[in-house]
Amino acid sequence: MGGDDNGDRALLSVRDAEQSAAADLPPDVRDFIAGGSGAEVTLAANRAALELVYLVPRVLNDVSDCTTTAQFLGSGVAMPVAIAPMAYQGMVHADGELGLARAARAAGIPYVAAMLSSCPLEEIAAVGGSTWLQLYWLRDRGLLRDLVRRAQEAGCRGLMLTVDVPKLGSRLRDMRNGFAVPAGAGAANLAAPGNGTAQASMAGAAVPGSSAVATHTAAAFDPSLSWPDIAWLRDQSDLPLVLKGILDPADAHRAADLDIAGLVVSNHGGRQLDGAVPSITALPEVCAAVAGRCEVILDSGIRDGTDVLRALALGASGVLLGRPALWGLARGGEAGASRLLGLLQDELTSAMMLAGCPDVTAAAALRTVSPVAATVDAVARGYSR
Amino acid sequence: MGGDDNGDRALLSVRDAEQSAAADLPPDVRDFIAGGSGAEVTLAANRAALELVYLVPRVLNDVSDCTTTAQFLGSGVAMPVAIAPMAYQGMVHADGELGLARAARAAGIPYVAAMLSSCPLEEIAAVGGSTWLQLYWLRDRGLLRDLVRRAQEAGCRGLMLTVDVPKLGSRLRDMRNGFAVPAGAGAANLAAPGNGTAQASMAGAAVPGSSAVATHTAAAFDPSLSWPDIAWLRDQSDLPLVLKGILDPADAHRAADLDIAGLVVSNHGGRQLDGAVPSITALPEVCAAVAGRCEVILDSGIRDGTDVLRALALGASGVLLGRPALWGLARGGEAGASRLLGLLQDELTSAMMLAGCPDVTAAAALRTVSPVAATVDAVARGYSR
Amino acid sequence: MGGDDNGDRALLSVRDAEQSAAADLPPDVRDFIAGGSGAEVTLAANRAALELVYLVPRVLNDVSDCTTTAQFLGSGVAMPVAIAPMAYQGMVHADGELGLARAARAAGIPYVAAMLSSCPLEEIAAVGGSTWLQLYWLRDRGLLRDLVRRAQEAGCRGLMLTVDVPKLGSRLRDMRNGFAVPAGAGAANLAAPGNGTAQASMAGAAVPGSSAVATHTAAAFDPSLSWPDIAWLRDQSDLPLVLKGILDPADAHRAADLDIAGLVVSNHGGRQLDGAVPSITALPEVCAAVAGRCEVILDSGIRDGTDVLRALALGASGVLLGRPALWGLARGGEAGASRLLGLLQDELTSAMMLAGCPDVTAAAALRTVSPVAATVDAVARGYSR
Amino acid sequence: MGGDDNGDRALLSVRDAEQSAAADLPPDVRDFIAGGSGAEVTLAANRAALELVYLVPRVLNDVSDCTTTAQFLGSGVAMPVAIAPMAYQGMVHADGELGLARAARAAGIPYVAAMLSSCPLEEIAAVGGSTWLQLYWLRDRGLLRDLVRRAQEAGCRGLMLTVDVPKLGSRLRDMRNGFAVPAGAGAANLAAPGNGTAQASMAGAAVPGSSAVATHTAAAFDPSLSWPDIAWLRDQSDLPLVLKGILDPADAHRAADLDIAGLVVSNHGGRQLDGAVPSITALPEVCAAVAGRCEVILDSGIRDGTDVLRALALGASGVLLGRPALWGLARGGEAGASRLLGLLQDELTSAMMLAGCPDVTAAAALRTVSPVAATVDAVARGYSR
Repeated sequence: MGGDDNGDRALLSVRDAEQSAAADLPPDVRDFIAGGSGAEVTLAANRAALELVYLVPRVLNDVSDCTTTAQFLGSGVAMPVAIAPMAYQGMVHADGELGLARAARAAGIPYVAAMLSSCPLEEIAAVGGSTWLQLYWLRDRGLLRDLVRRAQEAGCRGLMLTVDVPKLGSRLRDMRNGFAVPAGAGAANLAAPGNGTAQASMAGAAVPGSSAVATHTAAAFDPSLSWPDIAWLRDQSDLPLVLKGILDPADAHRAADLDIAGLVVSNHGGRQLDGAVPSITALPEVCAAVAGRCEVILDSGIRDGTDVLRALALGASGVLLGRPALWGLARGGEAGASRLLGLLQDELTSAMMLAGCPDVTAAAALRTVSPVAATVDAVARGYSR
Repeated sequence: MGGDDNGDRALLSVRDAEQSAAADLPPDVRDFIAGGSGAEVTLAANRAALELVYLVPRVLNDVSDCTTTAQFLGSGVAMPVAIAPMAYQGMVHADGELGLARAARAAGIPYVAAMLSSCPLEEIAAVGGSTWLQLYWLRDRGLLRDLVRRAQEAGCRGLMLTVDVPKLGSRLRDMRNGFAVPAGAGAANLAAPGNGTAQASMAGAAVPGSSAVATHTAAAFDPSLSWPDIAWLRDQSDLPLVLKGILDPADAHRAADLDIAGLVVSNHGGRQLDGAVPSITALPEVCAAVAGRCEVILDSGIRDGTDVLRALALGASGVLLGRPALWGLARGGEAGASRLLGLLQDELTSAMMLAGCPDVTAAAALRTVSPVAATVDAVARGYSR
Repeated sequence: MGGDDNGDRALLSVRDAEQSAAADLPPDVRDFIAGGSGAEVTLAANRAALELVYLVPRVLNDVSDCTTTAQFLGSGVAMPVAIAPMAYQGMVHADGELGLARAARAAGIPYVAAMLSSCPLEEIAAVGGSTWLQLYWLRDRGLLRDLVRRAQEAGCRGLMLTVDVPKLGSRLRDMRNGFAVPAGAGAANLAAPGNGTAQASMAGAAVPGSSAVATHTAAAFDPSLSWPDIAWLRDQSDLPLVLKGILDPADAHRAADLDIAGLVVSNHGGRQLDGAVPSITALPEVCAAVAGRCEVILDSGIRDGTDVLRALALGASGVLLGRPALWGLARGGEAGASRLLGLLQDELTSAMMLAGCPDVTAAAALRTVSPVAATVDAVARGYSR
Repeated sequence: MGGDDNGDRALLSVRDAEQSAAADLPPDVRDFIAGGSGAEVTLAANRAALELVYLVPRVLNDVSDCTTTAQFLGSGVAMPVAIAPMAYQGMVHADGELGLARAARAAGIPYVAAMLSSCPLEEIAAVGGSTWLQLYWLRDRGLLRDLVRRAQEAGCRGLMLTVDVPKLGSRLRDMRNGFAVPAGAGAANLAAPGNGTAQASMAGAAVPGSSAVATHTAAAFDPSLSWPDIAWLRDQSDLPLVLKGILDPADAHRAADLDIAGLVVSNHGGRQLDGAVPSITALPEVCAAVAGRCEVILDSGIRDGTDVLRALALGASGVLLGRPALWGLARGGEAGASRLLGLLQDELTSAMMLAGCPDVTAAAALRTVSPVAATVDAVARGYSR
């Protein structure tokens, strides 16, 4: 790691990483990661809603053997956290997906490889951790089938289909920046014969007022995705399937009737429908609709160990960690990501111990309260951006 | 247009237009448009209330053929949006009402011509779009009858009677600015024989501490407007009638019993009674009171495509777009307005797709949640002081 | 008025007067008037709570003959507003109590003379308006009896006993300023033989860290005031009696069983118990407890005509106007106060017309809503002082 | 006191003391005291929640003999306040624990000596006030037994076992400051034979990025503390036992079934689990669960006399005063602490008188309202989306 890990002494919490990223990344890359869609109402609301979930800690439980281990995404994990699928990690640090996947493996947690990764999924899977492959619904069904086959052959543990991107949310920061993915960090999985154009479009020159990512999405993603397609995808492999991007309890109820391994309650980190409900607000009703038929995973807004505990207390089996993982990767490549995940593990352990929870089963039984006094304070902080 | 459309590359969202108007307009004209009444409590509350309506998107609906077309204001429209009646558009740009009406026609949406327009209603109607005429209740009943006759002869599709201006709200910005409508932008429809004075008063010299618009309103508008007058107005023509400015469910219930085409839930953009309830807050109860007997339209505070979707989800058949349309007009005349309406169309389409709505029927079925619901749920679940 | 009314063209609303007072008054006098007790939580909460009472206006009522006249404090008034009892008006402007009383008479509203007025009550009553005398419960019962007799002889219409000052609230601004009432503006009514000391103490030299007003209050006021004392006071005259400073419904219920003319729901403008409930929040429950047995008057936080309408809509028969009246007096003596009351009359008329209320009976029937969205916004603004 | 009490004229309220501490203390010591854990969400929420508890004062009660005396922590006190256990008071002022204990004795209130005090408990108890000893659950059970024995022999009135520190909360300020307790102010009680190392570690050199206090806590405290251990502790002495750090009603219910004298509703001043519910929010449900079986004491966030009254009104028998007592000590040693406690006594007396409470029994019967109650009422009255 050497030089690029210099300032790490100041990285004392997962939240610290975000501040440091301002120094570690070019402004347009940082904006691409940090930004939301539209007026970024949902981006802010995710945080406000999480902060107004007050935990009611228990005491006088023996927490000397506190463990964060869990069954999550179908297997045993060191903590109920997985790296969220995030595109183009090669632009964050030269270590890219391999660095973050190695850090996840070392931390004992799953890594969900993005379909739009900067290096081929086979190389990521070869890292040897618990690797999942995320998919968007591509117009090119053959390419999709191909990706599924490759995932299975590479030893991926499952597939995570993102269902909330019929088109890209309006990411004004990227449009203002004329953002394009830097050359060399483009979508390696799609750089198969016949897909050269797709990758090229993303790595193209910056165009003021337009986002190359949005242009590519519109060209490549199929907005006709609907319920029957899930069966088609299930038929392409024996891999467990998780649906990512569900917020409505009725959708959750229907999804749980399919043979899926889980669903992810997510508003895509405030990057798709601006004005969408915060994920943590939607979580309890989704859990009630699912009624234990599959895993319910929380995504969007997780920033520290307490947030993980909040999600567990409200019914999630675990969470996806997004932006903070990239901040860690930006800071020091694999080592920076490892340090970040170590901090999160420490924070979750600490939060569980302080809440009197020796394990995740106890965490799931914690009470939470959200009085209006809290609402007033926290929503207002979110609102008065 | 050429030169005055220069900076448009930076206009990437409907909201952007408001910022740009600071450069495009004289301060007193901008204040006249942007301002509210009194302490501007309702002006701000309109926005706060809209942003706290969280949408719950649906997924796995085929949205590849997403359409924003709707039945709205009695006919088919490209999107359920109409240009709100706004006075004196000639002072915003030389294109004035004609520019905005042409942009509306091109966008496939209705244009509600203000009674106090800077050019005669006949010219506006001749643009050939779906034109409605807005009316205030004038002391001069003959003049009112005349306007109705002219509207019918000019081919207007309907009448929209504003019922919330028995007098003008106290617009302190205009009073501080000594605002008067610039010469040449005055009320062309009233410049008939015998009405020269009225227009003159509005185009008069600036008087510090007083608003020429308020002076004219007090002279010309009749505060005795009451329920029986609606029948009189209905008798003057066969044109459909919409009442604009209703917030109380009891008023809505009574109005729906008359033979009207619709009503507009509006607090006049926070420009009349300061302290009035936000329109979006009042909407659901009004819809319940109307119970489908006529259209219910939302006005006040709409700033982007998500806001339109919020209104649809809470029961409106469509919305009136006010200030943003003028910001677009200010920026580049007809072309600027067209660009603005194009952005709104894009934003609404995007919001509907991201919410899983292939059409407005699906939009009307979306769930919403807000801190109200969450709080009440939480309290009901047993948390209480 | 001449010179001291120069800037009045900028005084376009009642609220404007507060800003201007910074220029019109010495800082310590302005602080004495503007300040609250303790951390000024209640001072801010009064405003936040009023602003979150959203009015639901009615339409299509004939408001061409809108009148603000009312029965209030036992007689016909031009608007349901009285000047609140406020001490030492002589320090605000040379016109002092006489100026404000004359302005009230001209405005057709009652003037409640403070026991601690800078000029004798007889001179105030001689102004010829509807004058009430406010009383504190003095340790010197003879002096109290004397004041009642003098009030009756001077033609006062009633007595208003302040019941929320067993001791003075901790007004830190005054203590920091070492505030003392300027010489000549002291308590004229108490400057009878044997009370020279009391007045002297208030007009004494400034003592850093201490308030001369607090010192005098502790010496002169009797904290033993309790229910049986009300009967004693009732026996001293035939004047109607109003109790000022009630917030608890149980107290209101008990008070209404006595032979009193009314009670004032008040937290003393946030100057007594810091942390006390906002008056407007307490009003509905107090009205329910009183059930029409006497008038219920709202005090604390009134800043414009909409606030008066809010109070009427929530059950008050009228309001007391405090600080704004002094800001008007400060600005231009009697003429400044008259202008202020004229503005308030205009604002109330305007608010009533815009709410569709031809009279106060209609105002009392208005609906209000206070959704959490509003709470979130308004309380937060109050909280984040 | 001399020189270090110079600025006291400006210390007019308990809250003022916090500001002054910036000048009185080294930044890292001030941060150690003022800071919370994690993102300090709970630290801020404690204050927000208290300020939103609105008191409904009573009137016409004779408060001329208002007394704050109470039964609290098992004996008669001058006011229902005790000094919270706080470590290392020697670093705040040379007077240290002895100064604060003397001030408490003079004020007629209990002093809870911290296990981690800078001077031996015997010296503190010798001050002669009502002294309690606080304990953490030490890995070294013999040392714990020893401390209990010493407390009993020294005449302590009771034991207060802190149950919310299985490990130290993540205090980022201390970690950033590389905070270590200054030499000479370390844990005197633990400096017995065999414990020299423990004290040394706390008084060690500053290590950037790490807190010496956290290091010591991890080494010395036993996170296995659980319900059966309470019985063991009860068996070590006849001293009354209070459990500090309970927030969940189920824990409170179980605790009250043990033979304990009381429990403290506390989130450790926002220093342990960040995201924990505010203590004042948790208080009513804990009181309901305890149902009078033992005392319920409120800790965390108390900043003035009104806060004490809020706690009494919501069911507490009294409160622990934390940081403000240290600010007083910092300002002027024993004299500064005495002045601080005098101010609190004045504030509480004033608040009780202004709320119409002649004694704490009346205080316990006060009504409170908050935006929660108001909102729920409003929604229940028929307003709902």
